Amino acid sequence: MSDLLEQLRKAVGESHVLVGDAIHADYTHDETLTLSPVVPRALVQPVSTDEVSEVLRLATEHQIPVVARGSGTGLSGAASPMADGILLAFDRMNRIREIDIENQVAVVEPGVTLEQLNAALHPLGLTYPVSPGEQTASLGGNVGTNAGGMRAVRYGVTRHHVLGLEIVLADGRVLRTGGRFVKSSTGYDLTQLLVGSEGTLAVTTEVTVKVQPRLTETTTVLVPFATLAEVTHAVPRIVASGVNPTILEYADALVLGSITRSAGLDLGIPEDVQQRALAYLVVVDEDVERLGTLLGDLGAIDVYVLPPQAGASLITARERLFFVSKAAGCDDIIDAVIPRAAIPDYLAKVAELAAAHETFVSGCGHVGDGNVHLAVFQPDVEKRKALTREIFRIAVEAGGAISGEHGLGTEKMPYFLEMADPAALELMRAIKHAFDPMGILAPDRVLGAGDQRATS
Amino acid sequence: MSDLLEQLRKAVGESHVLVGDAIHADYTHDETLTLSPVVPRALVQPVSTDEVSEVLRLATEHQIPVVARGSGTGLSGAASPMADGILLAFDRMNRIREIDIENQVAVVEPGVTLEQLNAALHPLGLTYPVSPGEQTASLGGNVGTNAGGMRAVRYGVTRHHVLGLEIVLADGRVLRTGGRFVKSSTGYDLTQLLVGSEGTLAVTTEVTVKVQPRLTETTTVLVPFATLAEVTHAVPRIVASGVNPTILEYADALVLGSITRSAGLDLGIPEDVQQRALAYLVVVDEDVERLGTLLGDLGAIDVYVLPPQAGASLITARERLFFVSKAAGCDDIIDAVIPRAAIPDYLAKVAELAAAHETFVSGCGHVGDGNVHLAVFQPDVEKRKALTREIFRIAVEAGGAISGEHGLGTEKMPYFLEMADPAALELMRAIKHAFDPMGILAPDRVLGAGDQRATS
Repeated sequence: MSDLLEQLRKAVGESHVLVGDAIHADYTHDETLTLSPVVPRALVQPVSTDEVSEVLRLATEHQIPVVARGSGTGLSGAASPMADGILLAFDRMNRIREIDIENQVAVVEPGVTLEQLNAALHPLGLTYPVSPGEQTASLGGNVGTNAGGMRAVRYGVTRHHVLGLEIVLADGRVLRTGGRFVKSSTGYDLTQLLVGSEGTLAVTTEVTVKVQPRLTETTTVLVPFATLAEVTHAVPRIVASGVNPTILEYADALVLGSITRSAGLDLGIPEDVQQRALAYLVVVDEDVERLGTLLGDLGAIDVYVLPPQAGASLITARERLFFVSKAAGCDDIIDAVIPRAAIPDYLAKVAELAAAHETFVSGCGHVGDGNVHLAVFQPDVEKRKALTREIFRIAVEAGGAISGEHGLGTEKMPYFLEMADPAALELMRAIKHAFDPMGILAPDRVLGAGDQRATS
Repeated sequence: MSDLLEQLRKAVGESHVLVGDAIHADYTHDETLTLSPVVPRALVQPVSTDEVSEVLRLATEHQIPVVARGSGTGLSGAASPMADGILLAFDRMNRIREIDIENQVAVVEPGVTLEQLNAALHPLGLTYPVSPGEQTASLGGNVGTNAGGMRAVRYGVTRHHVLGLEIVLADGRVLRTGGRFVKSSTGYDLTQLLVGSEGTLAVTTEVTVKVQPRLTETTTVLVPFATLAEVTHAVPRIVASGVNPTILEYADALVLGSITRSAGLDLGIPEDVQQRALAYLVVVDEDVERLGTLLGDLGAIDVYVLPPQAGASLITARERLFFVSKAAGCDDIIDAVIPRAAIPDYLAKVAELAAAHETFVSGCGHVGDGNVHLAVFQPDVEKRKALTREIFRIAVEAGGAISGEHGLGTEKMPYFLEMADPAALELMRAIKHAFDPMGILAPDRVLGAGDQRATS
């Protein structure tokens, strides 16, 4: 152990290997609600690809697990430390290596945050449109979980923007995948396999993302409906109409009330409408007129076109929802994905399940792409897990999947292992083994490959 | 062998297993220019997933290689038969299983063609926008090569539209990946790994694709430039302007001349302009006015807004280019992908190489997404291969890749094996082994895994 620490210090510098009390509390967790803090065996903060390579080589030599961490904003435990492992934190690899205007790409280190990237892009008239709620999230972390967010309904998720990666394999070898091009049919697409693999196949040291001209002017409309079912029935029709909104979110009355109250936001919705409305759509689009007519036909109580400032504030407030929910005592966040047309039935069943399990569940979500976010308020762990299992099971039965964008990490993994096709799991384990034969990389998450790692 | 044939006949029916002279010449090749016809050991035409499963089980048992074939329109040899193998042809699996309007997806068998799918979608106001030149191509084949085409610059390639697959593994097990949802972070993305794997990992028996409301009205403009360099310099600027065209193609004067002549198409370009123009852009977009101004600034000789019928005819003529080139005696087609901004330099080098190798090379391509198609006229195999190698090498050196959409098959594989990072090849071989440990599926293409298949 002291041998390892000495070698790590030699690899990345004395002051960039921390142990015990020297590790700041921020590094003992990500934002997952269901996990307790864990102090890793060592916090290692490399500054270059070469240093990452050397750290992984040492980890393989010593058979020590490695967890990569960007900003630590994940919600499924993928970036939470392992007590016996190295936490490889990318705070110091936070340089934008290049903004290539000609090819419309940005090349960044994994520690670069979304707000940092967009701050550099905006003066050039460019933007990176993927916008998961947390703008301090890192690009490396986004690649790990295949982050999505509100604008995915129009612009797609992280996987649709990552054109190339530089990765370090478990044994320290460095490899480039993809490049500054938007299509390829040249062997298996390793880039796409790596996106969403939550640090279990390789460690990302550079990300090439597609950027684009800044988004066109849009308007935010807030649309109250008398029932949640009307909202969810409206969604496939909006998508099918060809309106192609930038944002298409739903929020139940409770969620909308709590985010606006928490932000001190008065959207000018009359009291009587607020009392009748059980659910809302929030739609951001260029063509508000066409949208308004359509929404009226779909049973909206009314359609409120928000002034630009109020629209922006509502979206910001929505992005803060996680923190509002957390402050309200929420015990877990679920982000199942469901075929859009199955959402009305799904949410009706969720309400029944919540009642049967005597648990309060509030909902909102990126309903335009079928991604339903549920906040579960149930402090009793066993009761909560029993309900969670049922909520995932009906998602899978409806043809959906356990997570649309948060990933499996450690916390959603057990449900995945229980519900996935054994043949699919076998293939994934074989892929894991192909990349990481010793089981060094985040071995306790996604597939739970404890059986693959020699006990150290 | 006779034992195998008997078992195959039992699996799919007497009349759907053909051998020797009973195999129609169409099945002895795909459209690859550099290959000679090969009669497979057996042509097998299953009608269901169960039959495919049984055929693969038998192939594994007898250690016989299997090549899957859709419409046989591929250009790299991925669907060409192996003499000692089963050719698994999907002519009879050509049903559209479902068009799900609510979820905006179509679920099709692999033998369904693009024209068949769009004929079913159009009356519903829907379209599948991926449009590789050949509308008789099958969806199964498109999945295999990750087909692209002219509209990829705006709508993306096959991989961006495939949401789920039903596949049969080499040992006969049936597996579903993905589903009727547009995003997921639930384990490794097997769907994306399978798209573009050219039948080497599994056999596809069902494809779920995203469809969308029919495309908006567009106009075709034909834009002559005095030099090819001006054309290729204009491309990144058009993309960066945010115009977002549906089609953004270039063609050198020779290509444009031959496709219009061959189609008997008079586009009304004055003789003196034709004589000055060495290269053309073909752009399809909604906003012709903005585009026209931009193109003028970028040095176009003139901008011709084509009448709707002429515009459609030009696009159709462009889609026929392969056959025009073939009729003209073209010996190979190359479709390297290059970072957009590197194309001017790349094409200048190609011209130098062609001259040095005393070979005629004409060019056109999906230049908006960096995919350059080159027709190589050089009947001498060794001379042609020497030039091809150099053309690929400079593409890779420019940060590009060997194929944008045609795939590697048997014909581009040797260059790939030579130029790819050995670590990437090692990972791909391990992935291949994970899916197909016996090396039954198209073992002589993409990675050339002869070493993995026990000799039968």
